[in-house]
Amino acid sequence: MRVLLSILLAASLGFTAAANTVDVKKQRFTLDSFTTANGQTIAPVNIGWEAYGKLNADKSNVILITHYFSGTSHAAGKYQATDAVPGYWDSIIGPGKAIDTNKFYVISSDTLVNANVFDPNVITTGPATISPATGKPYGLTFPVVTIGDFVEVQKALLDSLGITKLYAVIGPSMGSFQAIEWAVRYPERVERLIPVIGSAFIDTFGAVKLERWAYPIKVDPAWNNGDYYDKGQPIQGLTTALAYITQDAVHPVGFNLRYPSPVADKAALQDIRASLTAWDELMQHAKVRATYQDANHILYLVRASQLWRAGMGDSWQQAVAKIKAKTLFLPATGDLLLPPYLSKQSASAMNAAGNPPQYAEIPGDWGHLDGVVGIEAVANKIQLFLQ
Amino acid sequence: MRVLLSILLAASLGFTAAANTVDVKKQRFTLDSFTTANGQTIAPVNIGWEAYGKLNADKSNVILITHYFSGTSHAAGKYQATDAVPGYWDSIIGPGKAIDTNKFYVISSDTLVNANVFDPNVITTGPATISPATGKPYGLTFPVVTIGDFVEVQKALLDSLGITKLYAVIGPSMGSFQAIEWAVRYPERVERLIPVIGSAFIDTFGAVKLERWAYPIKVDPAWNNGDYYDKGQPIQGLTTALAYITQDAVHPVGFNLRYPSPVADKAALQDIRASLTAWDELMQHAKVRATYQDANHILYLVRASQLWRAGMGDSWQQAVAKIKAKTLFLPATGDLLLPPYLSKQSASAMNAAGNPPQYAEIPGDWGHLDGVVGIEAVANKIQLFLQ
Repeated sequence: MRVLLSILLAASLGFTAAANTVDVKKQRFTLDSFTTANGQTIAPVNIGWEAYGKLNADKSNVILITHYFSGTSHAAGKYQATDAVPGYWDSIIGPGKAIDTNKFYVISSDTLVNANVFDPNVITTGPATISPATGKPYGLTFPVVTIGDFVEVQKALLDSLGITKLYAVIGPSMGSFQAIEWAVRYPERVERLIPVIGSAFIDTFGAVKLERWAYPIKVDPAWNNGDYYDKGQPIQGLTTALAYITQDAVHPVGFNLRYPSPVADKAALQDIRASLTAWDELMQHAKVRATYQDANHILYLVRASQLWRAGMGDSWQQAVAKIKAKTLFLPATGDLLLPPYLSKQSASAMNAAGNPPQYAEIPGDWGHLDGVVGIEAVANKIQLFLQ
Repeated sequence: MRVLLSILLAASLGFTAAANTVDVKKQRFTLDSFTTANGQTIAPVNIGWEAYGKLNADKSNVILITHYFSGTSHAAGKYQATDAVPGYWDSIIGPGKAIDTNKFYVISSDTLVNANVFDPNVITTGPATISPATGKPYGLTFPVVTIGDFVEVQKALLDSLGITKLYAVIGPSMGSFQAIEWAVRYPERVERLIPVIGSAFIDTFGAVKLERWAYPIKVDPAWNNGDYYDKGQPIQGLTTALAYITQDAVHPVGFNLRYPSPVADKAALQDIRASLTAWDELMQHAKVRATYQDANHILYLVRASQLWRAGMGDSWQQAVAKIKAKTLFLPATGDLLLPPYLSKQSASAMNAAGNPPQYAEIPGDWGHLDGVVGIEAVANKIQLFLQ
């Protein structure tokens, strides 16, 4: 039985899944050619997508879900009844749930450079993709892509389905970046916006923290400047990067519940080379996820996140002033990765521009991860906001 | 003019020094032989120390200052009038200051495995020290040492001076660990205790974060399993470790003031290999500090900190119940490295044992670093507590 990558993090931390899920079919969208924000061409672009609920006649009931850094399109339901766990937001997406698939047509797609490129349920285009020009993976010849590029590919998908209005765009973490960028670029199309554990920009502190995810990959000799596809992945570097991502997404309270205290590490007192059991376990969990992920894709996601600011120009504040959507910010109280101050500053800029957002915090012990595994705590707020 | 390592971090972040400093002379203390907590012998042990103020006749006016991870004995004053900046807590230690050297004899020593081993003003014993047995640096044959070992060497120093009572022990960060361990091991000797930006234990989350400081050193090929003294330091790994230490000690508000926004990084959009200016500057600052520090010493300090819990046994809660000192916890509100919850839990355990500590927070924009560069904000509280 195959456990989807996008939720393995949560699964590895011991969360269990809700029942009452929907059957989901993964689909493919192809763009013959796409021009990136930095003026380069990718041809073709393939991404995966899935949907829950039914599109109504005038196509006015569409809610777009945009996924987080380590996530995929799989926001709800199961591909097969035997799947261990459903999509990451299954607790709020489904029949009768906060994002009610009896009312809404909920659609979600894989981004460009999706981390989980070797998950058979993921369809993405990035450095691990075979370049038609060379017959080999792009590697670092793949262009730098931005959150704006993610949004443009999604827009092409929605255009192909004849969808021109979004009842709402909702996404957690890096998904909040895409959701906000949608509302900035296409203010007439986006009626409601919910940035969850998110922000209208990455600050310098966050951009440098992201670089620390990239570092273990870049210093792994097996990375070989991104040219490793015929030799095998830089597993040590990739595993370490994923371990750091896990820790940075979790609040100490949750982390200390999950991983053992150094008090029991007797060898560590005797031998400077001995590692802590908590470190070993964190790395073991990360190593499982590494089998589905690609090191270069992580670097491209890091870069897309480092460059994030609404509108992708010089002033994210001026960009968010363009948003017409009714907006609800939902940061997590214990979030140390994209702390509530970022949501507050984002909301404050919208408020200054005359479009005051609503604001509520997600409680919980898991920090940033509460926006994924603990989202049910604000299900009522989301439901009310969508009415 | 030589700038002391222990304060270079603060200096690099743009802090300026107070006037009204005292002249300081660095001294050497030698122990012919020392047995570590894990039963190994180091012979000899040398550490540096310095003092401010005058020891009174009955030796009852002694305040011990214990230094932080990247610190040295140089807590106050200047070695020479031409020194660029005084010791790190000069704003609160000196004639008429909160820790008044007109009243108190203030003493401070370098720890074992001090980070700044190549600073000419630092005297320490660690992996970079020449082993008398081999005529070569110990490297990783140096035993793992603990906060308890740091305290035992300090006790030997005080014993050699005939000092058997401490009016107070005060230290920031890793210095708080030593201060607390003093009060646990020698409850009859320690009358007052001020753990600043500190904790009675390291939690699992903190221990794993510390491992992330060690990682860049360990994966640098030049580290060579700690055996690099004839070939030169693992500069890349050491520099990266020091960069991470800086970021982890600083709150985003301060960090964002100090380092440039990625918005200006035009090359980063064009080239996945291009680094962010903020990262480059952080690394440049770290590289200056790296010239005075030793990579193995950092690993030993990481390990000592990872193993930290009061009493060094299975229950730090039982250990802190032995403390008789009147105690004041001073965490920094914005501290993301040793956040206030650690001080609160520590204080709570002492409270449960019938010795309720006082508690106040240090305000500021610099997070953990506020306990060093922003200590003046709680000078009055320290002064009152010492009366």
